[in-house]
Amino acid sequence: MPVKMSKSNVKMSDRLLDTGLALMSREGLSGVTLGRLADDVGMSKSGVFAHFRSKVDVQLALLEHSSKLAGPHVLEPAMRQPPGLGRLQAFIDHWFGWAPRAGLPGGCPVAAAMFELDDVEGPVRDKVQAMEREMRGMLGALVSEAIASKELRADVDVEQVVWELCGIYLAHHVASRFVRDPKADARGRIAVQALLQRAQA
Amino acid sequence: MPVKMSKSNVKMSDRLLDTGLALMSREGLSGVTLGRLADDVGMSKSGVFAHFRSKVDVQLALLEHSSKLAGPHVLEPAMRQPPGLGRLQAFIDHWFGWAPRAGLPGGCPVAAAMFELDDVEGPVRDKVQAMEREMRGMLGALVSEAIASKELRADVDVEQVVWELCGIYLAHHVASRFVRDPKADARGRIAVQALLQRAQA
Repeated sequence: MPVKMSKSNVKMSDRLLDTGLALMSREGLSGVTLGRLADDVGMSKSGVFAHFRSKVDVQLALLEHSSKLAGPHVLEPAMRQPPGLGRLQAFIDHWFGWAPRAGLPGGCPVAAAMFELDDVEGPVRDKVQAMEREMRGMLGALVSEAIASKELRADVDVEQVVWELCGIYLAHHVASRFVRDPKADARGRIAVQALLQRAQA
Repeated sequence: MPVKMSKSNVKMSDRLLDTGLALMSREGLSGVTLGRLADDVGMSKSGVFAHFRSKVDVQLALLEHSSKLAGPHVLEPAMRQPPGLGRLQAFIDHWFGWAPRAGLPGGCPVAAAMFELDDVEGPVRDKVQAMEREMRGMLGALVSEAIASKELRADVDVEQVVWELCGIYLAHHVASRFVRDPKADARGRIAVQALLQRAQA
């Protein structure tokens, strides 16, 4: 049951979420412990405990917080374009590299979590799976709009295009953040263009 | 300086490496601590300490051990094919999903480490970077052989093909291990075939 919070409690909760998300972005889900979060935000462990009952509670709240952060940085700019290939392209442009642009000090929390949690069962894995499914759903809707606007072929396998886009996103994430290759953006653009050309009417 | 080991010490070291690699494959690099490794292998922490001086030492040894495991499962079957597109295809077939086939209980340790260590500096990151570079080097050599055998076009951007193959590998890793999509293998095959077709003479 959620605890009813005073105004100052709400602010502290925001600070905890922002600090925790920065920590998760740098060190992954396993790096987010109640003790480490208390240190980073400068409060006692029991203080953090008043907001979150467990490590799992914190992780779920941070994942939810990260999806709220992604909205204005990825989906909203795309939705300002008319439906079709231009909107899909705008979404991809804002998606690739969104985490640092949204102020996160590390990489995309969901991309990292998909490798961190592949062999771990539980509510955190379920949450990341739901977020990943939602992301593929959004991409699928945008590809379908580009089919409806006759910019992509009617017989395009929407799920396959989405699957391959996710692969290019992961390759770009590794190239830009892990390899630190200055050509990461250019390589990502070439791959996306080739994939969309294959699907073009 | 490496400690000179008796025969029984060498066997124990092998057991530590196998157990540690299984742990790393399931839980990632951060899951491998001297204490956890001691528990899993059934010896005292000071016993593990006689083999490895630090957590970093263990992680470096396990990464090295994983690349030795990958050789007979990925590179060697490909090298039994004559150079050209067939050898490249054989390498890809053995690469995708190699970790469970090599007996690891979790996913590919390098794929996970590239997301875990993107924001962490140090010798472990350097080691994973060197392994990733070596992998891209091998793939690049195989693509170049297929150009030399005139099965791929002479003007193919080798690095781009390798970059995109790595993306398809990551998408396949997520689809098969995290999403547990029964279509993961089929989707991976379609993506690889489309990429190779784009590069064909």
